[in-house]
Amino acid sequence: MTLTNEQIINAHRAIGVIDSGVGGLTVVKEISKLMPHESVVYFGDTAHMPYGPRSYEEVRGFVFQMIEFLRHQEIKILIVACNSATAAGLSYYQKASDLPVLGVIEPGVRAALNGSSSGRIGVIGTTGTINSSEYEKALRRQNGSLHIVSKACPLFVLLVENNLVDTPEAKRVAHEYLDPLVREEIDTLILGCTHYPLMTELIQNVVGPSVQLINSADEIAAEVGEILNKGNMINPLNSEKPRFRFFVSGSPTPFEEVGSKLLNRSVKAYQVTLPSTS
Amino acid sequence: MTLTNEQIINAHRAIGVIDSGVGGLTVVKEISKLMPHESVVYFGDTAHMPYGPRSYEEVRGFVFQMIEFLRHQEIKILIVACNSATAAGLSYYQKASDLPVLGVIEPGVRAALNGSSSGRIGVIGTTGTINSSEYEKALRRQNGSLHIVSKACPLFVLLVENNLVDTPEAKRVAHEYLDPLVREEIDTLILGCTHYPLMTELIQNVVGPSVQLINSADEIAAEVGEILNKGNMINPLNSEKPRFRFFVSGSPTPFEEVGSKLLNRSVKAYQVTLPSTS
Repeated sequence: MTLTNEQIINAHRAIGVIDSGVGGLTVVKEISKLMPHESVVYFGDTAHMPYGPRSYEEVRGFVFQMIEFLRHQEIKILIVACNSATAAGLSYYQKASDLPVLGVIEPGVRAALNGSSSGRIGVIGTTGTINSSEYEKALRRQNGSLHIVSKACPLFVLLVENNLVDTPEAKRVAHEYLDPLVREEIDTLILGCTHYPLMTELIQNVVGPSVQLINSADEIAAEVGEILNKGNMINPLNSEKPRFRFFVSGSPTPFEEVGSKLLNRSVKAYQVTLPSTS
Repeated sequence: MTLTNEQIINAHRAIGVIDSGVGGLTVVKEISKLMPHESVVYFGDTAHMPYGPRSYEEVRGFVFQMIEFLRHQEIKILIVACNSATAAGLSYYQKASDLPVLGVIEPGVRAALNGSSSGRIGVIGTTGTINSSEYEKALRRQNGSLHIVSKACPLFVLLVENNLVDTPEAKRVAHEYLDPLVREEIDTLILGCTHYPLMTELIQNVVGPSVQLINSADEIAAEVGEILNKGNMINPLNSEKPRFRFFVSGSPTPFEEVGSKLLNRSVKAYQVTLPSTS
């Protein structure tokens, strides 16, 4: 198939990813595995992290600032790689953008429904995500007879962002949050926050090997691949090394540390001051 | 001529422009006039402005930080639109980059030599540029018998960056700097700083109508056009609206104000913190 110049240029554009911090990097990692030639522009709103306790309106304000910034960065698709931000208003972002905009709730829901045999599904996320009941609503739309147990785990994001996952206090916190879910005999646990794949080992240890963890990053990457394929938007320079641009609103150093470890490459991030939303 | 995908994508990239502040926008303006479909990525190092009084080594450090930032911004050519930065080490930047890198001294020199009939040429610039004698050396390389009068005008950049050009004190300062050049009966005056085209009216009033002002921005834009043409690097989407990305290291507001006025379009700039050079 021959592409026009416009199509070639569009297909060469990067995949845009936004998150409140480092969590969306788990999505970047899966995208890189699945589509090693695709480039990524990332914005982590670390100055306003965590989003979990904030109002939807406030979160939407931050998200629109990031979208406005990425609009100048030449992207072909936008991933809202943050459950709190997705819950706060995915349809708003989609209406405001002429690009495909993907959230992180639907892909995790699909994977959980495929994975669960008992129909007893746990969902963990930030306070904002759990209070929104977006996962519960999406699960019930597909299957009305599920047994769903949700639990807000507000400290998890802070453990990840501050590199404290491998500490005894993290283990204690994880038991506090997750033991009630284990007692409900779930067979599937949706990691309803893109930060949580960064602490998979701890979570799996606490819930035990019989519970299947649903990492929505895998699912999102697969969905991005499908959309790019269908839209003739796969990078046409298939020998090209991917280009990564990372921007944060807070200090770049902790982001670079977590990012370099996770992505197994040197991550350089620039601090950008987003205008205040007032 | 048929371009490969690589050539199409490269040609679609933006023109990179760096400066210590708003001065390089005069170059952007001329580029837009000459090549209305070309996109621009601009970095104004307003946090470290003015460059004039700083050491070459320090200025080169700042310039390399900006080049490193723009490298991630997908550009096809880089313009060092600042005389102090050009004087501090254009050949260093050229060696460190695999893109064409253009400075602002040679184009102005060529235009002045073409324009002067008496061979009495004035050069004004920042203290750094004038102390470097780069203009004088470049002029003398072409013609050993010129009468060259140079004058550092360190306050001019500050007048422009602080929107004070139309004040009585600016007029007084301009007379202080320029009257000695007029007494030397120059017929041509090189504006050896990309900020100075923003105060052309004041300068022309002080030196009188018989002195021709050389605005290097025009010359640079023409040279960029030639390089892009020769290298098959003209934007292949010739119906496209140009994309402008502006970044500054200091507060965006004064940059946006001067930029919007100069370019006659709404200029939105993002503040980026460059890592300190140590």
